Amino acid sequence: MKISCAQLNYHIGNFKGNLEKMLNAIEVAKSEGADIVCFGELATCGYPPRDFLEFDDFIVHCEESIKTLTDAADGIAVVVGSPTRNPVPEGKDLYNSVYFLAQKKVLHVQHKALLPTYDIFDEYRYFEPATVFDVVEYKGKKIALTVCEDIWDVENENPLYTVSPLDEMVKYAPDFIINVSASPFNYSHESARKEVIRKNVLRYNIPMLYINHVGAQTEVIFDGGSIAMSPNGNIYKEFNYFEEAQSTIDLGELIKGESLQEQAMSKIQKIHDAIVLGIKDYFGKLGFSKAILGLSGGIDSAVTAVLATEALGRDNVRVLLMPSQFSSDHSVNDARQLAENLGIQYDIIAIKDIYEQYMLSLKPIFGELPFNVTEENLQARVRGMLNMALSNKFGHIVLNTSNKSEMAVGYGTLYGDLCGGISVIGDVYKTEVFELAEYMNRNKELIPRNTITKPPSAELRPNQKDSDSLPDYEILDTILYQYIEERKGPSEIIASGYDEKLVKRILRLVNINEFKRYQTAPVLRVSPKAFGMGRRMPIVGKYLS
Amino acid sequence: MKISCAQLNYHIGNFKGNLEKMLNAIEVAKSEGADIVCFGELATCGYPPRDFLEFDDFIVHCEESIKTLTDAADGIAVVVGSPTRNPVPEGKDLYNSVYFLAQKKVLHVQHKALLPTYDIFDEYRYFEPATVFDVVEYKGKKIALTVCEDIWDVENENPLYTVSPLDEMVKYAPDFIINVSASPFNYSHESARKEVIRKNVLRYNIPMLYINHVGAQTEVIFDGGSIAMSPNGNIYKEFNYFEEAQSTIDLGELIKGESLQEQAMSKIQKIHDAIVLGIKDYFGKLGFSKAILGLSGGIDSAVTAVLATEALGRDNVRVLLMPSQFSSDHSVNDARQLAENLGIQYDIIAIKDIYEQYMLSLKPIFGELPFNVTEENLQARVRGMLNMALSNKFGHIVLNTSNKSEMAVGYGTLYGDLCGGISVIGDVYKTEVFELAEYMNRNKELIPRNTITKPPSAELRPNQKDSDSLPDYEILDTILYQYIEERKGPSEIIASGYDEKLVKRILRLVNINEFKRYQTAPVLRVSPKAFGMGRRMPIVGKYLS
Repeated sequence: MKISCAQLNYHIGNFKGNLEKMLNAIEVAKSEGADIVCFGELATCGYPPRDFLEFDDFIVHCEESIKTLTDAADGIAVVVGSPTRNPVPEGKDLYNSVYFLAQKKVLHVQHKALLPTYDIFDEYRYFEPATVFDVVEYKGKKIALTVCEDIWDVENENPLYTVSPLDEMVKYAPDFIINVSASPFNYSHESARKEVIRKNVLRYNIPMLYINHVGAQTEVIFDGGSIAMSPNGNIYKEFNYFEEAQSTIDLGELIKGESLQEQAMSKIQKIHDAIVLGIKDYFGKLGFSKAILGLSGGIDSAVTAVLATEALGRDNVRVLLMPSQFSSDHSVNDARQLAENLGIQYDIIAIKDIYEQYMLSLKPIFGELPFNVTEENLQARVRGMLNMALSNKFGHIVLNTSNKSEMAVGYGTLYGDLCGGISVIGDVYKTEVFELAEYMNRNKELIPRNTITKPPSAELRPNQKDSDSLPDYEILDTILYQYIEERKGPSEIIASGYDEKLVKRILRLVNINEFKRYQTAPVLRVSPKAFGMGRRMPIVGKYLS
Repeated sequence: MKISCAQLNYHIGNFKGNLEKMLNAIEVAKSEGADIVCFGELATCGYPPRDFLEFDDFIVHCEESIKTLTDAADGIAVVVGSPTRNPVPEGKDLYNSVYFLAQKKVLHVQHKALLPTYDIFDEYRYFEPATVFDVVEYKGKKIALTVCEDIWDVENENPLYTVSPLDEMVKYAPDFIINVSASPFNYSHESARKEVIRKNVLRYNIPMLYINHVGAQTEVIFDGGSIAMSPNGNIYKEFNYFEEAQSTIDLGELIKGESLQEQAMSKIQKIHDAIVLGIKDYFGKLGFSKAILGLSGGIDSAVTAVLATEALGRDNVRVLLMPSQFSSDHSVNDARQLAENLGIQYDIIAIKDIYEQYMLSLKPIFGELPFNVTEENLQARVRGMLNMALSNKFGHIVLNTSNKSEMAVGYGTLYGDLCGGISVIGDVYKTEVFELAEYMNRNKELIPRNTITKPPSAELRPNQKDSDSLPDYEILDTILYQYIEERKGPSEIIASGYDEKLVKRILRLVNINEFKRYQTAPVLRVSPKAFGMGRRMPIVGKYLS
């Protein structure tokens, strides 16, 4: 038996586009002599469809796609994820299901039992969990169909759940497992995923075909990396990361388990490629092609510009150099040098005249009050407005260049440098931004060395430096990681060797700046805990603040 | 037996403040001879605590509060909601529980079974549902303790759930029901709530004490309105709305069911009072007292200014009149008149000079390109920046003045009029804004008549009117209501009698403007479906767009 796995880049709600991709993949699979072709979780509508699922009209569209795919399941079987309706009034209205279509009929539908409801996932908001488990028989083989999370409670040792779907299905002695997934990327997810698949095949002693999505849906990035794993735990084939792929697997060969085709990528390479895909899909799926950003001469905007250029091409990235009276000459020079290295269009607009006109207009109200954060923010906001003006005039999307460390402690000006349609490196700590810069310079000096080595500064008042008010980024990032990614409280972080006063100050800064992050662009997610939909914090909360 | 019900305004994560309020209420209850005093759901930590619940340190704080309350349960029993830990590894780490504390001991803990996971609710993200139900016996009475949603599946007819906790508890023949709630306000929730409580008491033929939160937690507003209902379905006592209240109920009198004390409020009055409380608590709980907003002479900013003045007092509200070259004289006059009627500080800053300086600085890039939305947005953004400058200089929070209709279709400028820490009327359709204005003028003309009667306009280009590009607000709002509140699709809305082209255009506008709402301030929630955490939509989604 031959099984074709199609790792596709779906688009939420783009029923026509998703359907066309799948119909094409069915033809490819047929041409390769496949008996079965497999797609991803909720492939008809894309993932995560979020509250679109509450619209009956949206579900009707999903059902129409399934009808078309059923008709196309002619001479080949089709395995595809789609929402189905719960026929009884009790419980949620929908199931998250996988269809087995063959002979132009629905041969089997298996619902998902383990509904992730944590981090970015809200599945229990929409779906009723499965309570019935079965296998489907096709061409003499029994197949266990599973949806994503359903393989993640192997040996019933995942503390989130109380049932293990495959433990139920193995009672029917399946020959192999198909798992249709929409399993989002983070830099540590790949190893976790392989370990889970391996535990499953070893426990049940049958092979598994794991088919993932690839592509970004706003902030959520799917990395692909679909896997065919042999019963002995060998990776028979690992699909490419961050691009569409389709391949036909011979079941007999897969069971033998003699082949090993693994991909290998470093953490920084993965983050880099994920963000490039994230930018590309944010623009492409919204129907935009051109980006604009402010280039300060600092490392954050430099790294963002490089990522944007890789994603969109040099002709589609434009930068503004907007020196203030506090900007050093080398900042403008470094920024210009980077723009020239990248071959992207740049313009220089000094912000002094606009800034001074604001101060003049505000003079009757401000009087002789001293320069403070107001004037700093005003400069950052003039820059934001200039980016937005070009965005409006020429059809660019503004890129937000804030890193995770400064987003965390609120070092950024709302409606100023926090402007932008998408936050490119908002899930990358400052220390990781440096690693990204070094990675980008691995072949030649793309980012000027001075941009990497000079002390970080917002240059919003004379001789300002980040280190005036923040600890070294190595220390800051470690404290933030413990609080954000590891959900440790102050006493645990202090116990790990950090100054009590510093820890309390940092955690307080994180919590009192929730209001800024609330109004910031979606953040391309590359870590296990990004700001945004996966981290839901009260604004008026008094905890640690 | 006497039972004191305390309807309190908690603050998320403010363990000390919440505890003090409860300890005071225990003393009050004792002084009134109460046998039991009851608080709300998750009263130790406030509701909704969101991802703070993922911090072990946060749960430890809850446990410490329970310890203190247990010690205080001396000569009186205390009923209080708080998270508890799930002792087994399977399932979520926590339960959402209600404690019964007496004789300085924990006499009983009942977990919540029905975990709302829809709209603004994410309870399944954190909590494991209860599977064991019992009653607690105290001073010869058997009491059924329930948490909020657990009374919402009466007669097992709520299609969201498959269990009815009270059906399980009545097996133990309880004498009465206590329900500790955190049930958020919307203008139609009060009647639904009374109906559910009535169904419960009639079905089980025992009385119920329903204790709600009051106060706002960022966008979520709790209206209070706690209820003691007799077994015959009479409302023995309905507590005040939108303020703290405590009252001791005599169980014997409650069972007799001969008294009727109901509150009555119109929809607009409720919306008005809810928003006033929402503003007051947003400022108070963040430690701010002063608001600033731009007053355009239009109805939205006028209504916002009135609400802010009622919430914060005239000395704490400041407005900026920021005419552009396209502003009509009457706009400035109307705005000034309103400020004078309210007795609030106002300043006039013409934006022309700043705007022209922007255009001068942009001239080398824009050349002779014609005036378009860029210049309109720029004017709106200059106003936003001026509001923010005063906010930074004097410590105001900027109020966002956008209404729900324009938020829906994207008629608003990101980083311009969409600036602000909190959206005051972002859940109020334009037609309802007019009703609010009339309500505010019910005794005397606070809002100038001209502000109410003139055709709505953004005044960002010559002779601009909302009706140039939008249908009448009566039509727009009805279409939006069907799409947003009722989740109807295009064919259902068209079938209700609206032009196909218009409906499709409106729904498309709603969906393609998700990116703007994503970056807008939290919206005070007064309807059953507000923009924000209760309505989760993809940005790159292609559905209807």
